[in-house]
This record gives sequence, structure tokens and C-alpha cells, in this order.
Amino acid sequence: MLTPAESDRLRVVLVETRNPLNIGAAARAMSNFGFRHLRVVKPYAPAFREARSAVGASSVLARAEQYKTVAEAVADCTLVVGTTAVRHRHLHHTLRRSEDAARLICRRLRSSNVAILFGSEKRGLTNDDLSHCHWLLRIPTHDENISMNLGQAVAICLYELIREAKPPREPEKFPLASAAEIDRITAMLLDALHESGFLDLRRVADSEQRIRRLVRRLHLPARDAVIWLGMFRQIVWKLRAGEHKSSGPKS
Amino acid sequence: MLTPAESDRLRVVLVETRNPLNIGAAARAMSNFGFRHLRVVKPYAPAFREARSAVGASSVLARAEQYKTVAEAVADCTLVVGTTAVRHRHLHHTLRRSEDAARLICRRLRSSNVAILFGSEKRGLTNDDLSHCHWLLRIPTHDENISMNLGQAVAICLYELIREAKPPREPEKFPLASAAEIDRITAMLLDALHESGFLDLRRVADSEQRIRRLVRRLHLPARDAVIWLGMFRQIVWKLRAGEHKSSGPKS
Repeated sequence: MLTPAESDRLRVVLVETRNPLNIGAAARAMSNFGFRHLRVVKPYAPAFREARSAVGASSVLARAEQYKTVAEAVADCTLVVGTTAVRHRHLHHTLRRSEDAARLICRRLRSSNVAILFGSEKRGLTNDDLSHCHWLLRIPTHDENISMNLGQAVAICLYELIREAKPPREPEKFPLASAAEIDRITAMLLDALHESGFLDLRRVADSEQRIRRLVRRLHLPARDAVIWLGMFRQIVWKLRAGEHKSSGPKS
Repeated sequence: MLTPAESDRLRVVLVETRNPLNIGAAARAMSNFGFRHLRVVKPYAPAFREARSAVGASSVLARAEQYKTVAEAVADCTLVVGTTAVRHRHLHHTLRRSEDAARLICRRLRSSNVAILFGSEKRGLTNDDLSHCHWLLRIPTHDENISMNLGQAVAICLYELIREAKPPREPEKFPLASAAEIDRITAMLLDALHESGFLDLRRVADSEQRIRRLVRRLHLPARDAVIWLGMFRQIVWKLRAGEHKSSGPKS
């Protein structure tokens, strides 16, 4: 059982949803299970308008926030969980069954915000969306038809969170850095890797996504975020200073 | 996990459903979780026809059986479970939370057929419908909005059946980097911090210990150790190269 404060820390993030009925269904399930914060990223605009203006549209839907990027939609969260129907594809992410996932999410909600991401009806979350996720949740569907209706998938994920009548046991020791802090650190590290030539040596299409995943896998504590950022910033500054001197006219 | 024979003993019974999308959604959830027998009692006829003829209508829907009465629809079952959103109304029936209900249903499916009844979108199951039920199942919704979408309620009930039957499983975790790997990474990071001047700016007695603790607080996965070491090595190399050029005799 989540406390109201804990429920209030969850963000349900719908990415590029196209069907207004699905946005409405997600909002309804949220209302059924006591969650308030619905965020939509790049929704199909007419669908979002239609969902909002539907008869009986909930207060959850009325208060839904719209974002241009996944990064902005999850910026205040320390845990970002992607949902997927696939079992084996995601070599880059730990894949957890919904029941195990719910336990971890509830534990994190005791101290900080968590986002659960749902992709578009057609193709789910893209690799770029996934690079913002710490790990993935899978509802254990049957092999013959793994693809769930979006509204039903949202309902099941939220149900899992409130299902346990007992409160979770021990809280986590350290609060972790927020997605926004992780983003800043990742950006600074990327600068350092560019300046040092590291990324030039390893030309792969998705190198930035790889680095983003790499940093997300670290479980970086909130209290260390500032110093990591400071270290990378200093390194970048020095790399640029060196570059400057070596190529500058007066050196 | 239910065996195929056990799954095959479940009947999902929709009573007086009016919205074709809900019939379709129920069928889709059944297909997702490996159930086959959908029965509809007195459906709103155009809705049922529309659901059946919908693009992508599942084989579950195609094989759905139509009944005139609840009695006929549950005739081959030894356990009939009604669903309700209400908590206190049903003096005549035991009311069970979905998780407890699922356990009992799964047990019965080992030996004989079970029906789960879902009422119409507007008023749920009538007293007459309920008189065919052995007990009632309730999804623990929030006080503020207890009424669930029919398709979502079906999905959650079926999910509970396939969820509960499986013994709990711990998620696989990534092995973490060894102390030796962490040491090498720490040493390389320290080099980068020295070269960049970071540590000169922050002269504290135990700065190296602090950095060491900082790296240890990360949950650095074993598989990522090599790339982190490589990134820092490249940064150090570049920092030194810049230093060299800027102070070297020929620059």
C-alpha cells in the first residue's frame, strides 16, 4: 500500500501516443489507483485535444502536462522505468517482470520521484527513449500475443503498485541523483569525450545513447552529483585550454 | 504459470456489455494471457457484431459464444466468481481482494472449470446475476474513483491469474565490477583530476580517499569497467598531450 505522498511521486509518461482513447484510459486507471501526474511527450496533437475534451475526462487528464522530450518529462525523477513487450531484445537494459519491478518502484517512491514510460501503440519505446531508462518492465504476456493494449498495460502496471497490502520494508540508503542531474553530468562527460578524441576513435551510430546508458547504470547518489559535474567540467575546461594553447598563435 | 489445460478451463463471461470496444479489449487481454473461452450474455447485439467484425479481431473473439442467460453461460463451471467495484454492499457474498481471489481460482482450475463474470459498463452485475456467483472479487481501487473501465478490469483479473501461479523470481542482476577494476578506474580518474588541476583547486588532506569513496559508491557493472577505464585513459592522454604541446619547446 502506498501512502498518498508516495503515490504523488509517480509520473506516468506516455510517449507519442496516437489514440485519444488510450490517453483517456491511462488517465482513468491512474484515477482508479490514486495517481495524479500524467505526462505526455509529443502526443499526436488532435488525439490529445480530443482526449482532454472527452465527456467525463478526469481531473488527471485535465492536469496532464505536455512535454517536447523524454528528458524533460523525467527530469525530476531518480528512477526511470521503460515498459516493453519484448523478452530478449534489450541487451542494454535489465528486464524485470512486472511483479519484481513494482517492488523496486514502490521502494524508490518512499524517497523520490519515479517515471514509468509507455511507448506509442505501434512501435513502443524507441532506442532513444530507452536510453533514458534505468531498466525495463515487462508484463508476462503469452508467447502467442505479447502485444498489449496501451490502456490495459498502464492499468496493470499501476495495479501492481497498489496491489501489495503490506508496506514495503526497508527504504533505500541513499537518495539517487535526479534524471536532470544525470543529464547534466552525461552532457559534460560527452564534452570531455569529444574534446579528448575518445568518440572520434569509436565511430558508432549510437555512441551518445551508449554513453547515456553507461551513466544511468551507475546509480549515482544525489549527494555526489555536484562533485561529478565539477570534475568533468574542470576536465573539459582543461582539455579546451590545452587545445587552445597548442593551436593558438602566441604559443 | 497455469498449464495450458488449466488456462483452458477458464470462462470469461461478459454480461450485457454495450460497448464493442470493451468486448474487443476483453478478448485481447484474454489472448495476451493465454485464455480462450469468451462468453457473452445478452450483449447489445450491434455492439457484439461490430466487435466481431473489427479489423484485427482476435480468434478469441471469433470463437466467442453467445448465451441468453447467466445460468447457461456458467453451466459447466464448478466455481462462479462475480466482479464488483463496491466494497460493502454485498451482504450475501464473501468479498475477496483480487490477489486472494486469484489464488483460489487457480487452485480450482487444476481440476475443473471456473467462470469470472463482468457486468455491464453502467450498472455492473445485477442481483440476479450475483445469485449465480459463489463469491465476489474486488480490485482494490481508490475511494475517489472505484469504477474501472471494463477492458482494464478484465485485463487485471486475468493478469492476476497468470501472475500468482508463478513462483516469485528474483530479477537477474548485473555482476558488479571487481575491486581491482574499481581501483584501476579510480587511479585513472585521479590522474585526470590531477592533470586538469581539479585537485589543486580543492586542497584537502584526504582528497584521494574522497575520490576513491566516490567511485565506490557507484554501482559500476563489471561489463562497463573496460569502457570507463578507456574513457578516462583517453582523457588523461589528451590532457597530457595538450600540456605537452603548450609547454613544449616547439609549440
